[in-house]
Amino acid sequence: MPRILKLTIAYDGTEFAGWQRQASERTVQAVLEDAIAPIEKSAVAVIGAGRTDAGVHAAGQVASVALHMGLSCDELRRALNATLPSDVRVLAVEEAAETFRARHDARLKTYHYSIWNGVAVSPVLRRYAWHIPQRLELEAMQEAATLLLGSHDFAAFQASGSDVKTTVRRLLASTFRPVDVSELVTGPAGDRLLRYEVTGTGFLRHMVRNIVGTLVDVGRRRTPVDQVNAILRSRDRSLAGATAPPHGLVLWQVEY
Amino acid sequence: MPRILKLTIAYDGTEFAGWQRQASERTVQAVLEDAIAPIEKSAVAVIGAGRTDAGVHAAGQVASVALHMGLSCDELRRALNATLPSDVRVLAVEEAAETFRARHDARLKTYHYSIWNGVAVSPVLRRYAWHIPQRLELEAMQEAATLLLGSHDFAAFQASGSDVKTTVRRLLASTFRPVDVSELVTGPAGDRLLRYEVTGTGFLRHMVRNIVGTLVDVGRRRTPVDQVNAILRSRDRSLAGATAPPHGLVLWQVEY
Repeated sequence: MPRILKLTIAYDGTEFAGWQRQASERTVQAVLEDAIAPIEKSAVAVIGAGRTDAGVHAAGQVASVALHMGLSCDELRRALNATLPSDVRVLAVEEAAETFRARHDARLKTYHYSIWNGVAVSPVLRRYAWHIPQRLELEAMQEAATLLLGSHDFAAFQASGSDVKTTVRRLLASTFRPVDVSELVTGPAGDRLLRYEVTGTGFLRHMVRNIVGTLVDVGRRRTPVDQVNAILRSRDRSLAGATAPPHGLVLWQVEY
Repeated sequence: MPRILKLTIAYDGTEFAGWQRQASERTVQAVLEDAIAPIEKSAVAVIGAGRTDAGVHAAGQVASVALHMGLSCDELRRALNATLPSDVRVLAVEEAAETFRARHDARLKTYHYSIWNGVAVSPVLRRYAWHIPQRLELEAMQEAATLLLGSHDFAAFQASGSDVKTTVRRLLASTFRPVDVSELVTGPAGDRLLRYEVTGTGFLRHMVRNIVGTLVDVGRRRTPVDQVNAILRSRDRSLAGATAPPHGLVLWQVEY
C-alpha cells in the first residue's frame, strides 16, 4: 500500500504556464512530478487542489501524491526543496488518510487578488499586483463585494466556453481592503495596495479574475454598485467586467 | 540656468550590475540617464546618493539631475515611468535648491537587510531575502547590533582593498527584529523574516553586508557577542564575518 502524502506548496507563477502538466510548457505540476520521480524511482501523479492558470501564484496550494519511498515527511520536504527551482517551494509534507484526495476533498479555497492603486507600482511588487493608476472608490468596491456573498449562480463570472455541471457556488468571504505593506515597500505618497480576499466552496474558471474586473469597474464608477446584482442574476458573461490579469492572483489557502 | 531636480527612485537590483554606469553592463544610473536624455534632448548626468552594488535593491534611492526641459515634476515622473523598465520606478520628482547635490548633501542613509530564517524561503521573497535555514539566536544578534551604535572606526567591516580618507562612521540606528510579512507570504510553521535596520551618516564599501555577515555568525553562535567589540577595535577585515549576499540588502531611505 502506498502512503498518501499531503503537500503544501508555494510558487511564483510568473514563469509557469499554470499548474497543470502540458506537453511542452513549464508547469508546476510537471516540475513537482519530475522532482519526486527520482526519489520514488517511478513516475508519479501529483494532484493539486486548484488548477491555477498561467501567471497565477500560490501561497498555499495543496496537492496529494501516493508514494512508496521510505523518506520521512521532513526528509522528503528537504530533498524536494534542494532540487526544485527557487520559484517553487514545498512548505509542508504531512501523512494523510488513505482516502485523502487534494482536489476532491477540498472544502474551502481562499484567493487573494492584489491591486497597486497609485502612480507607480513598486518594483518589488510588480509581479504580484495589478497596477491601476486611477484612484479607485474603495467603499463602492467593498459594498459591491458583499453582494456576492452566499450561494449564487456565478455563470456571468465564468470564462466563456466553460462546460461544467453547475455554475452555482457559495462564497463565505468576499472583501476588499487596503493592506499595509510598508514593511516591504515604499510607494509614492498616496499609493496603496488594495486586496480582494475571497473564500468559497469552489470557483469557476476565471471566476475570481472576472469578479475583480467587475469590482474594479465599480471602483472606476463605470458600473454602479447595485448593477452587480443585475449582472449576477443575468448569468450573462458579456455583462460582467473584463478578466483581471493573472499576476495579481494568489491561491492563498485550501481548507479540508 | 538649469533646474535642479531631486528624484526618489525604487529598483529591483536583481537584473542590474549596480547603480553606477559601466561600459557594457546594465546599470540603474545608465537606464535612468538614457530615459531622461530624449526628454532633455541632450546627454544628462544623474548623481545617486548611494552607489549600490550589483544585486542590491533600493526603496528610496535619491538622485539629483540638472535639466533645462520644460516638463513639470509630475509630468517628468509620468514620462519616465512610461518608458523605464518595470524594475525601476521614479517615486517622486521635486524641485530642489540650486546647490542640491544628492550624494554630497546626504545626511543620513538607512539600509534594510532581510534574512529568511527557516526551512523554505517563500518564492515571493527569494530575490529579497538571504535564506538561512539554521535557527539564529535573535537576542544575541540584537545585543551585538547595539554594540555598533555611535561613532567607530569601521575599518574591520570595509571591503578589503578600499581606499578612503577615513574609516570612521557614525551609526544612529542598528537593530535586528522579526518583521511580520504574513500579509504577503506564508511560510512553513516557525519560519520568520529577520531584518537588520541600520541608519548612519555614511557607509564604507560592503560595510552593511559585512556587519550582517558578522551578526549572523553571532546568531549561529560561532562568534560570542562581546567578540564584536574586539573585531571593531581590531580594524582587521579578516576578523569580521563573510560578506552577506547582495540580494538581502535594500537602500531604504536617504535623509537631507
